[in-house]
Amino acid sequence: MLPIKKESLQKPVQSIGLFGYGTVGKAVYGIIQNTPGLQASIEKIGIKDPGKKRNINEGLFTAHAGEILNNTCIHTIVELIDDADVAYQIVKDALWQGKAVVTANKKMIAAHFDELWRLQKHTGTPLLYEGACCASIPIIRNLEEYYDTDTLSKIRGIINGSTNFILSRMQDDALPFTEALLQAQQLGFAETNALLDIDGHDAANKLSILLAHAFGCVIKPESLLYAGISKLHGDDVKYANQRKQKIKLVAQAQKLKNGKLAAFVLPQFIEAADELADIHNEFNGLITESHYTDKHFFKGKGAGALPTAAAVLSDIAALRYGYKYEYKKISTQNSIQLSNDYYIKVYVSADAFSKIKSHAFEYIDESQSQYGYCAVTGVILAQKLWEDTWWRQPGVSLVTCTDPITPDADYKKISRRSLELAGIT
Amino acid sequence: MLPIKKESLQKPVQSIGLFGYGTVGKAVYGIIQNTPGLQASIEKIGIKDPGKKRNINEGLFTAHAGEILNNTCIHTIVELIDDADVAYQIVKDALWQGKAVVTANKKMIAAHFDELWRLQKHTGTPLLYEGACCASIPIIRNLEEYYDTDTLSKIRGIINGSTNFILSRMQDDALPFTEALLQAQQLGFAETNALLDIDGHDAANKLSILLAHAFGCVIKPESLLYAGISKLHGDDVKYANQRKQKIKLVAQAQKLKNGKLAAFVLPQFIEAADELADIHNEFNGLITESHYTDKHFFKGKGAGALPTAAAVLSDIAALRYGYKYEYKKISTQNSIQLSNDYYIKVYVSADAFSKIKSHAFEYIDESQSQYGYCAVTGVILAQKLWEDTWWRQPGVSLVTCTDPITPDADYKKISRRSLELAGIT
Repeated sequence: MLPIKKESLQKPVQSIGLFGYGTVGKAVYGIIQNTPGLQASIEKIGIKDPGKKRNINEGLFTAHAGEILNNTCIHTIVELIDDADVAYQIVKDALWQGKAVVTANKKMIAAHFDELWRLQKHTGTPLLYEGACCASIPIIRNLEEYYDTDTLSKIRGIINGSTNFILSRMQDDALPFTEALLQAQQLGFAETNALLDIDGHDAANKLSILLAHAFGCVIKPESLLYAGISKLHGDDVKYANQRKQKIKLVAQAQKLKNGKLAAFVLPQFIEAADELADIHNEFNGLITESHYTDKHFFKGKGAGALPTAAAVLSDIAALRYGYKYEYKKISTQNSIQLSNDYYIKVYVSADAFSKIKSHAFEYIDESQSQYGYCAVTGVILAQKLWEDTWWRQPGVSLVTCTDPITPDADYKKISRRSLELAGIT
Repeated sequence: MLPIKKESLQKPVQSIGLFGYGTVGKAVYGIIQNTPGLQASIEKIGIKDPGKKRNINEGLFTAHAGEILNNTCIHTIVELIDDADVAYQIVKDALWQGKAVVTANKKMIAAHFDELWRLQKHTGTPLLYEGACCASIPIIRNLEEYYDTDTLSKIRGIINGSTNFILSRMQDDALPFTEALLQAQQLGFAETNALLDIDGHDAANKLSILLAHAFGCVIKPESLLYAGISKLHGDDVKYANQRKQKIKLVAQAQKLKNGKLAAFVLPQFIEAADELADIHNEFNGLITESHYTDKHFFKGKGAGALPTAAAVLSDIAALRYGYKYEYKKISTQNSIQLSNDYYIKVYVSADAFSKIKSHAFEYIDESQSQYGYCAVTGVILAQKLWEDTWWRQPGVSLVTCTDPITPDADYKKISRRSLELAGIT
């Protein structure tokens, strides 16, 4: 039997400076305390309010970030605070000082992605953030590592646990939106500012991070076409139910024939046979499509303190063996460009027909109108949704159809006739 | 904007020696030729029969392994031959010579796991084999990296695409076993020796590899309790259909209360709501359960040349940045022991009641008998299945129940009474 070198069996303890002691921070602290096998130790915890009563050794806490960042015995920073601006300062300072960083702050990463990956390349210090997208699902590492050599063509998924929980309650239990939202907040699935979830900002932040690791496309979340679920109406749910479909908030990105990338976060009708139909409550799920591997499907808890903490801990462990994101697709590919120059099939409902800008559509498939509920299903240029605001006004709700991106050719053949039939031209 | 160092943008071409030019070998060669971004080049291809006509440059081929293994310009060996013994020699020689190896040969890895991980530790040369388990699903890397710090308690899945294809055809199209097997072979989903698939050997090989990466448990596949699907009867399928269940060949491993590990590959009844019920045809799927992350579900193509080739290529790419399996769980954990000392709930059918050894059961839930078809559902000690051969004889078929591992306590309370009711004691 071959001998195994001794040093591989015993590793030094990893000294951690933790910022933030909210639900995820507490969970990370608790797991580290209860898992000696981790060989990690939290030396200091940075918090905002030193006066607050906490149930662990008070000597661990400090309100002075410098006490952690300038401590030469601390080599790893775990950043889990709410304020994205303060978090950015902490992460930047830590990276410049050569301290490896783990964070789950998607808003901060999405807002400063370009600067942060450059800073990592420049300093050689790693920043890991598996917990920032789909909480417990190891999706960033899989996009970063596995699909490197493959021609990834599409990613599509449910990447916000809070909205998915709300939609599950609305559709499965016929709860009204506000009550479902309250339940999500009580169970700790919603962001402190619930608007971040329900208006789609959180999913847009996550999609922008995923686009960098999946396609090497670095863009600000505000460049994405996105909307949330707050204007979804009971009649929309009824419309879906009649067709044995569900409505989910879907983040989707796919390569277009012209080599550019279509990407959006919008509610979508989901067929019963679709993997995403079985993503219930706070679960997340993502489907990847690529030429050689065909489809992959990943599913797991996408919200909650423990699933997020588990991802943070897997990053802490990965730092032990020197793991860092290589950002290979950003560095080596001709960077792929985002485009809104594609046709998308959508259903729009409104409380008054005049609110639906029918002339913006290339063609209309279906149109119905009754007192207090009107709806149109048709194809529209994504760029028009991006520019126009009519579909964002109160009383108007937009849901994309299943497989909503329409090839250019198909539309051209039928558009004029359809518009005539629908009485639009 | 921070500058990016030039060297990160340009990497040297990876020189590869390929062994085997069968369906997967051809796919790997083809993808490398068509993907310049890979920056990989196949220098030489080792084959058994030099006389065979092939459609690419004949100068590439050699029947002398030494011509590849002793070539100092070749740094990476990709081993894709059928013969597990020859493959083992090639892999060993390559590792001793400091050449990184990628293989998809589960039989070879499972048979020599202990020696191969020690050899990697000793030489420091990596051996990667993502394609060996679940073809395209990046499961080995996820088990190896993501669950490192987490208390993984259970893995359960469909890890043989060929048997799943056969079962899908039997259940969805009511095809007889032999016809379904023929279809699987024609589509290239079955091993050259179909018995490896249908008798469960292939799944047992894969499970033994997964156990090492999931739980740090290194065992030979023949130590596992396993069986295949070849004795499954039309009446068993009918029994499942009546309960709106499916039968799938399931590989399962879970920690027992005593800290040991139960692991088996056996047909299993699957409820409609179970994620595994939606794994159709050649797809594979694996569910992991752990204390902090809860459940994860991975799904993707588990057989076929392209999905396997895609996994091989992701390993080739991973070698570029020095990736190797750390085998952390084997090195650092108190190694977890396999045990057959647990109760398992099974359904056994036979063409004659005398073939079912009822007295081996701890208790029996259900028993039925009619001409040519008898069945018993009850709880039995796994060790008894391991030791006895009555359930392996012709005409007897065994399927585990949903969630088949029974806690000790539950059984003790009811066993005596149940046995009496069933008229056994």
